[in-house]
Amino acid sequence: MFITFEGGEGSGKTTQSKRLYQYLIDRCIKAVHTREPGGTRVAEEIRNILVNGETNKMHRDTELLLYMAARVEHYKRKIYPLLCKGYVVICDRFHDSTLAYQCAKGISQKKIDAIYSAVFNEIKIDRTYFLSVDPDNGIYRATRNRSHENRFEQMGMKFHSDVLKNFDRIYENNRDRIVKIDSSGNPMRVFNEIVNDFNYLWSEVQKKKTQEQDT
Amino acid sequence: MFITFEGGEGSGKTTQSKRLYQYLIDRCIKAVHTREPGGTRVAEEIRNILVNGETNKMHRDTELLLYMAARVEHYKRKIYPLLCKGYVVICDRFHDSTLAYQCAKGISQKKIDAIYSAVFNEIKIDRTYFLSVDPDNGIYRATRNRSHENRFEQMGMKFHSDVLKNFDRIYENNRDRIVKIDSSGNPMRVFNEIVNDFNYLWSEVQKKKTQEQDT
Repeated sequence: MFITFEGGEGSGKTTQSKRLYQYLIDRCIKAVHTREPGGTRVAEEIRNILVNGETNKMHRDTELLLYMAARVEHYKRKIYPLLCKGYVVICDRFHDSTLAYQCAKGISQKKIDAIYSAVFNEIKIDRTYFLSVDPDNGIYRATRNRSHENRFEQMGMKFHSDVLKNFDRIYENNRDRIVKIDSSGNPMRVFNEIVNDFNYLWSEVQKKKTQEQDT
Repeated sequence: MFITFEGGEGSGKTTQSKRLYQYLIDRCIKAVHTREPGGTRVAEEIRNILVNGETNKMHRDTELLLYMAARVEHYKRKIYPLLCKGYVVICDRFHDSTLAYQCAKGISQKKIDAIYSAVFNEIKIDRTYFLSVDPDNGIYRATRNRSHENRFEQMGMKFHSDVLKNFDRIYENNRDRIVKIDSSGNPMRVFNEIVNDFNYLWSEVQKKKTQEQDT
């Protein structure tokens, strides 16, 4: 199973995705937690170029290609082989983030789709948890606990509000895959929503497996 | 004017392109010499990922996207602005190298074209000098003068022979743009061929300019 966590800055993706990972490990379910951009040695090298330095240090098309390069490396060299071995792979950010952020920078979805379909066949994501938080609140939470504002946080409130609108649009177009959760409230309540949905999904997968073995 | 130098390892591209640059500077023609992958700070950071470490350290699609990312940055942030200011830009390797090398690694031209046309409008290259040398001879020349074999040189002779075939195919399809020069012989004779062609091209451009000013 391939599970992704998506959302704006300070939405709690990292915390909640690690919590789900720990929940699975505690129940002896083979699982891996990973993140984008990054996740392999080469992809982390690419991440270093993306996240260090000024927000405008590169052309927006360069940035798009670097995100796609990191994703290709991460998916083809790490995620896909783990899925084949039966692991649950939990990924903090994936392609929805590229759509939401790069479109908010003025890149057309058509351009992103053209590059995506050149290098990927259809990638099956079993579930995406979209943690939705008001940008004011999210940025406050994101900067409160970290020593430096990062590149995303330098972009201004209009940008983050566009990102949230884009995530909402992606959610509306993929309601069978994406579960949207209001993450402004109590983190334990957010986690319970995730776990309830995951357990339902997991039991469906197990049922399907048993049926396949029976036939 | 945008001039590129292409060819396999040890074909003399770097030497000849720098010589042409010096020739123009000596005649007070505004010129810049640059190289791919690289040419800007971010593109050089991408180059470091590409050229350091094992030849198989990344998936071939990752490598393709990194070359394209470095090219977008180089062209949009450096080459194009210089061309607009009237410079002659001389570039050691450009997109023909990606076609020749990445196709030799088994990537389809269709995939490369899809990514290229997503991020570039038509780029006008005024002249490409394709320096052709037998791979045995080229690899000997390339490794003789350098302390380390680089990533390209670790690929084996079959690979380099495929690269040469690909360059030849690109040449056959673009004979109006590309001048093919046998670079196995005397470097001064090779340079004379380049300079003769360049001077012809330059005089044509000046003639056209004068005509445009007259009308």
